[in-house]
Amino acid sequence: MCDVEETEPSGTLRDRLIAAGHLIPLGVRGVYGRSGAMEHVIERFEACVTAAGADQRADVVRLPPIFSRAHYARINHIHNFPDLLGSIHAFTGDERAHRGMSARFMAGEDWTTDLVPAETMLIPAACYPLYPTLTGALPDGGRVVDLRSFVFRHDPSDDPARMQIFRQREYVRLGSAHQAHSHRDAWLERAEGLLAALGLPVERVVANDPFFGRGGRLAKATQREQALKWELVVPVASDDSPTAVASCNLHLDYFGLAFDITAADGAAAHTACVGFGLERVALALFRHHGLDPERWPAEVRDRLEQGAA
Amino acid sequence: MCDVEETEPSGTLRDRLIAAGHLIPLGVRGVYGRSGAMEHVIERFEACVTAAGADQRADVVRLPPIFSRAHYARINHIHNFPDLLGSIHAFTGDERAHRGMSARFMAGEDWTTDLVPAETMLIPAACYPLYPTLTGALPDGGRVVDLRSFVFRHDPSDDPARMQIFRQREYVRLGSAHQAHSHRDAWLERAEGLLAALGLPVERVVANDPFFGRGGRLAKATQREQALKWELVVPVASDDSPTAVASCNLHLDYFGLAFDITAADGAAAHTACVGFGLERVALALFRHHGLDPERWPAEVRDRLEQGAA
Repeated sequence: MCDVEETEPSGTLRDRLIAAGHLIPLGVRGVYGRSGAMEHVIERFEACVTAAGADQRADVVRLPPIFSRAHYARINHIHNFPDLLGSIHAFTGDERAHRGMSARFMAGEDWTTDLVPAETMLIPAACYPLYPTLTGALPDGGRVVDLRSFVFRHDPSDDPARMQIFRQREYVRLGSAHQAHSHRDAWLERAEGLLAALGLPVERVVANDPFFGRGGRLAKATQREQALKWELVVPVASDDSPTAVASCNLHLDYFGLAFDITAADGAAAHTACVGFGLERVALALFRHHGLDPERWPAEVRDRLEQGAA
Repeated sequence: MCDVEETEPSGTLRDRLIAAGHLIPLGVRGVYGRSGAMEHVIERFEACVTAAGADQRADVVRLPPIFSRAHYARINHIHNFPDLLGSIHAFTGDERAHRGMSARFMAGEDWTTDLVPAETMLIPAACYPLYPTLTGALPDGGRVVDLRSFVFRHDPSDDPARMQIFRQREYVRLGSAHQAHSHRDAWLERAEGLLAALGLPVERVVANDPFFGRGGRLAKATQREQALKWELVVPVASDDSPTAVASCNLHLDYFGLAFDITAADGAAAHTACVGFGLERVALALFRHHGLDPERWPAEVRDRLEQGAA
């Protein structure tokens, strides 16, 4: 599968990606610029995803990396993942307040004490900002929405696959419990097939989100017991703990209740999503096929350039 | 020029863009999702820009929407544009601190008092994060870098062309004063030609950045006197005050000095950039050719689909 990289120790991949110019360190752990070649891989992978989802007749929505603080307050992220959040703060003072802030800045003191919480937060997952836009009754048959967004997780790490800011591509299903379940199961098959066709040694595993603290242990166990989250994992920086490059998630009626979205029968809508971690997919391809996409196996290059199967 | 929209009052364009689904309100002024059709327009416009810049043999770098707070502290943004900044704050406390934050959140109090400034800020302009990556001597002949990034400006507004978060596409030149000047002048011509070829009534004007406060008046005047900033403006939301859809900027040796970048002669590098506001270009096209790209004039559609001239 991976003659070049398989025997490299963990950690080296990051150095090699940087040396090859694919990741450009920006002076903060887990924050990188991307090379044009890496972007091209991501664009081509996205075309494959679009082709795989052509039958969904999804509404395409492209979201910016920030969303409403008031909407953030309607989900449980602050309880479950406080260590990952990104809150945006702004300066709304007058010239006098500005002189004070500038003076603290020049003195090397904490200059942020004058800032106030802005109307926005960084997006923790691509589908969060969508739900508040769909409050009300879904059309008959529900909806499928095709999303892409940068998402933020305050998780400084030297693992190149644990970036603080990266893109997710998602297909979100909103409708009945049955529709959500079918979506999740169908995309688990599709996503696994797509990743395998790109020569990646993908495995599916039941997983849990990184709920915070001791209180999070129960949530993790419950999520696993109910098999709400499946991940498709591939070795990237480490052979021992492979990286999730995609996940297929059932949310039950959590978002339907939180944002008053109702299905055809009047009950709270159920939702499900498949999400691809676009940078992680590109890193997995570099890890398994080498750092020069021109030299990747012909069948992988053909598959990427075709988009459709 | 614009039979459909020309006589509409200011403000209506936003409502029409929302009704057509091109802008999806996310509950905060100036923060929107984008339709698939709008994204397609932006992708095709970017292909035109890429074709216009093919001779530049630019290094392609794609930047995430956040960058280093330490790098932010090495430029004068906090002095010049404090009202526009976006500072990212995170929670790094333990479970006890989390209980306190959760309690304040549940009580409807300010729950952000426990947050601390994270290592990052939102990017105010696409080229800022680039310069710290180029500290040292430039190669002979300098460099041209092709950038795209989301940028943030805390400027809540109902003008659809004044978004808080939007994408800039840039070509940045680093080298001698002469090279920077030539780049700026050449791209002013190219960008104007490209926008005019897309049927936009573009004009070039000397401009200034929105320096803060009374102290900013001198900076504005100086920037105009030296003609450091040219904008290409097109009526978008208002006929009376047209919107800058692109700008061509000379930075002199400001970034070279701030980040120790030296040109071939050993002196601080001069830099210049052309930047396109991608959402603004799309909005200008909707404004002047109508809300359905399928019904745009054939020559505009052809030009967009070709990419190259």
